[in-house]
Amino acid sequence: MNAATPNPIHALRVNGQRLWETLMELATIGATPKGGVCRLALTDLDRLGRDFFVRQAKAAGCTIRIDSIGNIFARRAGRDTARPVVMTGSHIDTQPTGGKFDGNYGVMAGLEVFKTLNDAGIVTQAPLEVVVWTNEEGSRFVPVMMGSGTFIGEFGIDSVLTQKDRDGISVGEALNAIGYAGTDVVSTEAIAAYFEAHIEQGPVLEARETTIGVVTGALGQRWFDVVVTGSEAHAGPTPMGLRKDALLAASHVIQCVNQLALDHAPNARGTVGMLDVYPNSRNVIPGTVKFSVDLRADNDEILTAMVASLHERLVTIAKNGSVSIEMTQVVYFPPQAFAAPLVSAVRSSAIEMGLSEMDVVSGAGHDAVYMARVAPTAMIFVPCKDGISHNEIEDARPDHLEAGCNVLLHAMLKQANGAD
Amino acid sequence: MNAATPNPIHALRVNGQRLWETLMELATIGATPKGGVCRLALTDLDRLGRDFFVRQAKAAGCTIRIDSIGNIFARRAGRDTARPVVMTGSHIDTQPTGGKFDGNYGVMAGLEVFKTLNDAGIVTQAPLEVVVWTNEEGSRFVPVMMGSGTFIGEFGIDSVLTQKDRDGISVGEALNAIGYAGTDVVSTEAIAAYFEAHIEQGPVLEARETTIGVVTGALGQRWFDVVVTGSEAHAGPTPMGLRKDALLAASHVIQCVNQLALDHAPNARGTVGMLDVYPNSRNVIPGTVKFSVDLRADNDEILTAMVASLHERLVTIAKNGSVSIEMTQVVYFPPQAFAAPLVSAVRSSAIEMGLSEMDVVSGAGHDAVYMARVAPTAMIFVPCKDGISHNEIEDARPDHLEAGCNVLLHAMLKQANGAD
Repeated sequence: MNAATPNPIHALRVNGQRLWETLMELATIGATPKGGVCRLALTDLDRLGRDFFVRQAKAAGCTIRIDSIGNIFARRAGRDTARPVVMTGSHIDTQPTGGKFDGNYGVMAGLEVFKTLNDAGIVTQAPLEVVVWTNEEGSRFVPVMMGSGTFIGEFGIDSVLTQKDRDGISVGEALNAIGYAGTDVVSTEAIAAYFEAHIEQGPVLEARETTIGVVTGALGQRWFDVVVTGSEAHAGPTPMGLRKDALLAASHVIQCVNQLALDHAPNARGTVGMLDVYPNSRNVIPGTVKFSVDLRADNDEILTAMVASLHERLVTIAKNGSVSIEMTQVVYFPPQAFAAPLVSAVRSSAIEMGLSEMDVVSGAGHDAVYMARVAPTAMIFVPCKDGISHNEIEDARPDHLEAGCNVLLHAMLKQANGAD
Repeated sequence: MNAATPNPIHALRVNGQRLWETLMELATIGATPKGGVCRLALTDLDRLGRDFFVRQAKAAGCTIRIDSIGNIFARRAGRDTARPVVMTGSHIDTQPTGGKFDGNYGVMAGLEVFKTLNDAGIVTQAPLEVVVWTNEEGSRFVPVMMGSGTFIGEFGIDSVLTQKDRDGISVGEALNAIGYAGTDVVSTEAIAAYFEAHIEQGPVLEARETTIGVVTGALGQRWFDVVVTGSEAHAGPTPMGLRKDALLAASHVIQCVNQLALDHAPNARGTVGMLDVYPNSRNVIPGTVKFSVDLRADNDEILTAMVASLHERLVTIAKNGSVSIEMTQVVYFPPQAFAAPLVSAVRSSAIEMGLSEMDVVSGAGHDAVYMARVAPTAMIFVPCKDGISHNEIEDARPDHLEAGCNVLLHAMLKQANGAD
């Protein structure tokens, strides 16, 4: 087709009202008094949420498969059964004091794409699929992103099925109890594309008054435990020059962590979120301080360089402060770039619809970060109010959610039809 | 008398062995498995310690008076009953995990002075007195330095008698229970001098290999509660430029507190001993940080200037960090200079005996700091191992304790005899 012949598919739009109402209906399952949602993975409420999804997907003509970790795959057939699938999805489990949109939006947006195509009588070349990943939040069972991590082979199925919650109930037992221990084998082969629409969970889009975040990748993360050991002493009788103040030394590390991130702007992060002082008494110079360091960057070389700089600075800080400092890595996620053609499809879809858009990186982990290891992947972010998530007051605007869903629709169509 | 006629009193020395043995005997009362002492104020163990003191004082020929807050005054008569008394003393209550020397040394050193004078058949012109102050530590009942503070009128007797411990037992009930609720009225008038020998509780004398600390006064103290309020946010999705990191701002305050003390070396102190982070989670930017600030200086103008500088810096730190900072004063002790003639008497006594000495200030509070408000006062410090106190491993050398007691003896003699 050429530019002189308008393609009616370009004008196709999702039903924003229906998307919103579906999200609100899902949010009644596990609704909290403060307007949030508590729907922990593999609970009865999770079962009700899954049942809601399956009913909606079947009504939209999908076939359902459930794998051994409980991931649900709802497939809408394409014209060409030989073509690899174009997927989208997210999760519907929440934090204990979670919101209505985190995860749920990505799943309901996928369903809305199917409903929109049904309404328009469109059948794509490639098959489409909406997936609900099991236990993304990791609140009840660790590790986080369990369903997608198992799907791509990061975790062995036997090890995750034996993980237990605080009451001693295993993942396997919980899956059986809610009737979502599936037997379908779903291959990671032959996936043409994976898209995930999600609220941003940060303040950038709102601050920049931009509707669509074109997510180019996810930051790599390195987390550390740090222990500074000085010497407890009385705050009165101990002159400044004879002190070994662990908290004073820690204060220099905190600023160093912050500076390292500033040095690698705009996509590096450096955070000390947890810090404990011993003995934590008003008139005693702190002898020991333990804290966390969380470094993130969009490039592994930068992340490695940040860690190296930090190690170097720790030597100087320890020497100057007459203390010892130990740092131990506890978490490592490599940076994950998303697939350039899919990122372009997201961007061009937004531009074609006249939506404001900007490139962003995902600072947090998502199922898409695992999926990117086995298939071309991209994400679509929409603003959330004040950047707040993992909180009952999490909120997002209907027009933003509709816009993100329209971008998802056209990005998927481009991949599923070869050319839009 | 003139320099050509040696005065035999100059050669007088205390019995260091006896002093040590008396201290060790007292330390058996409330001895802890780790070698320390737990003898909380107004407990049965405190009663046993008091009984031990009273027996020793009576055996040394003293008359005993006990006031309404349980302070014990053991008087050794002088030749001239009209002359004001020369006092010494300290406390025998300890911290829950206290040592053998804090307080106990000052009291037993006073008794040893009396025993030495008895052995030599010396009667001073002025009467002498050893006092045991009630509840200096403040571990069981607040406020600290209760006995001396009540004696000088800082606290009203009715208010302190109704103070309760965690079990609801009042000071008055506890005094009655151990039989130390006295009725003697002891006047703050007519005190010629008050001396207090004490372990340093800091590292200066040991570091300088000096036996006698000539204490010229006590630091003033201002304690504050500080609250930094920023905004909780996820460490991943929140770019550095959009953060309101309460801990990062607090780190600047910690360094400012330290720098303020360095700016007023050598006798200023600045300490952040207690700090709590909220929500204290690895991947959440801290929204609130609460901490203590302890500023000390030997001069009230310096102390006031330090507080003013801190207030000024807080405005800048709050602005730069996009946070708010509130600071509230919770404690104020003015600096207390000791009496120059008594300080000179301590110094000259040390020099005359060939002991190494240096001027020091007391960074901590002592009963002597209250006594200095009503009578000429000075203190004598001796080294303690590694500067450690308020700890079961608190330790001091017998030769240092003996030397300090000899200085106490001659400083008291100078005051009690007019000229030595």
